[in-house]
Amino acid sequence: MSRITVRRKVIALSVGQSCAAAEDWLAAEEPLQIRVGGRPLVVTMRTPGRDFDLAAGFLVSEAIIAAGQDFSAARYCAGVNDDGQNTYNVLDVTLAPGVAPPGPSAQRSLDATSSWGLCGKASIDAVRTRSAYDVSDDPVRIDAEILATFPAKLRSGQAVFDKTGGLHAAALFDGVSGQMLVLREDVGTHNAVDKVVGWALKQDRLPLAGTVLMVSGRASFELTVKAMMAGIPVLAAISAPSSLAAELATDLGMTLVGFLRASSMVIYSAGQRVVLAGGSSAAAAASALRSSPPEHR
Amino acid sequence: MSRITVRRKVIALSVGQSCAAAEDWLAAEEPLQIRVGGRPLVVTMRTPGRDFDLAAGFLVSEAIIAAGQDFSAARYCAGVNDDGQNTYNVLDVTLAPGVAPPGPSAQRSLDATSSWGLCGKASIDAVRTRSAYDVSDDPVRIDAEILATFPAKLRSGQAVFDKTGGLHAAALFDGVSGQMLVLREDVGTHNAVDKVVGWALKQDRLPLAGTVLMVSGRASFELTVKAMMAGIPVLAAISAPSSLAAELATDLGMTLVGFLRASSMVIYSAGQRVVLAGGSSAAAAASALRSSPPEHR
Repeated sequence: MSRITVRRKVIALSVGQSCAAAEDWLAAEEPLQIRVGGRPLVVTMRTPGRDFDLAAGFLVSEAIIAAGQDFSAARYCAGVNDDGQNTYNVLDVTLAPGVAPPGPSAQRSLDATSSWGLCGKASIDAVRTRSAYDVSDDPVRIDAEILATFPAKLRSGQAVFDKTGGLHAAALFDGVSGQMLVLREDVGTHNAVDKVVGWALKQDRLPLAGTVLMVSGRASFELTVKAMMAGIPVLAAISAPSSLAAELATDLGMTLVGFLRASSMVIYSAGQRVVLAGGSSAAAAASALRSSPPEHR
Repeated sequence: MSRITVRRKVIALSVGQSCAAAEDWLAAEEPLQIRVGGRPLVVTMRTPGRDFDLAAGFLVSEAIIAAGQDFSAARYCAGVNDDGQNTYNVLDVTLAPGVAPPGPSAQRSLDATSSWGLCGKASIDAVRTRSAYDVSDDPVRIDAEILATFPAKLRSGQAVFDKTGGLHAAALFDGVSGQMLVLREDVGTHNAVDKVVGWALKQDRLPLAGTVLMVSGRASFELTVKAMMAGIPVLAAISAPSSLAAELATDLGMTLVGFLRASSMVIYSAGQRVVLAGGSSAAAAASALRSSPPEHR
């Protein structure tokens, strides 16, 4: 299954200069249907590869499983195309005995009549109750200088991005050593995060205490929920968070860092976990000083 | 309703140099439930504002309506919070008499048992049949030099991005004059596109023959479907398309342009619509020349 990239004919055009036929690699996008015990649960458009991890991480996000022992097995099924070949786009997960399968309420949370609530505050209340883990008392402290090395580490690990210029990435770092534990790429950031969380689940590492989840794009409410469900105390993004991501992180006591660059960052919540060179926390240092709005555009 | 941005307290940190409390503007993200005739259809996480257009554009994408006359009215309903205030997060759409409401099959296409098909090719076959418009014979020809001005025009129109650094954008351009017809911003590119299409629907401009839809990020299968449903013959993106986006565009005869910059671009399909300085089309010029893979990383 090497369908992570697809080669296609393209036209490369330099305005006013040259125009030539060429071949180029594109990031693959294919639908994946996740079934549980034979029953369809969701279809996600994803980059093929690490599908078992994707399914496992998705089930953690949906509060269906919370530990490696809850996930019994997964296999590709059905999905045979007209030529009789398996498309590897239907994955059936078997839960461990005793783990409740997703009921009508779990399915409902995924679709039209979503129970996430109809205003931001209600959404936050609705998702908070779903988490098996509480990140608020995670004692990890992270050196700001180590945190600032993560964007370069993330970028250097993006093998498929190098080839296609077209993939999002998510990576998990140890908050103390700064070591990158795992990196996954996908056309959708939410899938890349699911693949990271599924990897950790299968290694029995949940909750992911003491870790930092770093994403290549923006931090949305959905990604903050996924970090919460995996017990990750720090979420960092290259770009901006949304209002609801910041609100949820504040409520949870999760540290949310945006615009993380090699020499600067903006901290939106729980700044006590970020430690400055002098040993004080960013929260303590900042409370003494006020400045104009950060320069991050 | 000025809830497009939200002001929050943050910590601005320059590594090894300064750390100060500040206030910053974040792009708002709130759930919107779209109902049709009182029945819940979908919940999307969106940036508030232009919600009527968002709902209208979404209904076009889902093949429920195809012309302005199909959309009768919309009003905010329910969604009152605990304090008795309307959250403006529930929108009920009334379709014109005679327009079939979304049935079980429409709802099914949005959720777990998606009918989009379980491999890329089946997905393409499934969505092709849903479109009321055929873009393959749209005769518009677009000057490559005009196309290359779109990224700067898009960027200069992104007012909320300037404030928050955190929004995607979609804009519609006239393919001949290069004039920007409308620009919309949102935390989700798919919502920004729905807002553009909904704007056009209400002006009775569908199908959007002769136009170019430009998006700030990547071109996914979903965005290509949305362009198809609105009859847009050219989709352009700042960043990379996915494999399935390129495959669908090729099948449809839609021109797909990626990595669109001020001086270069990559054309993935229907290159006959892009015209070079000498008057020949990119497709014709490229067929004469072969080059190494494009430099767009």
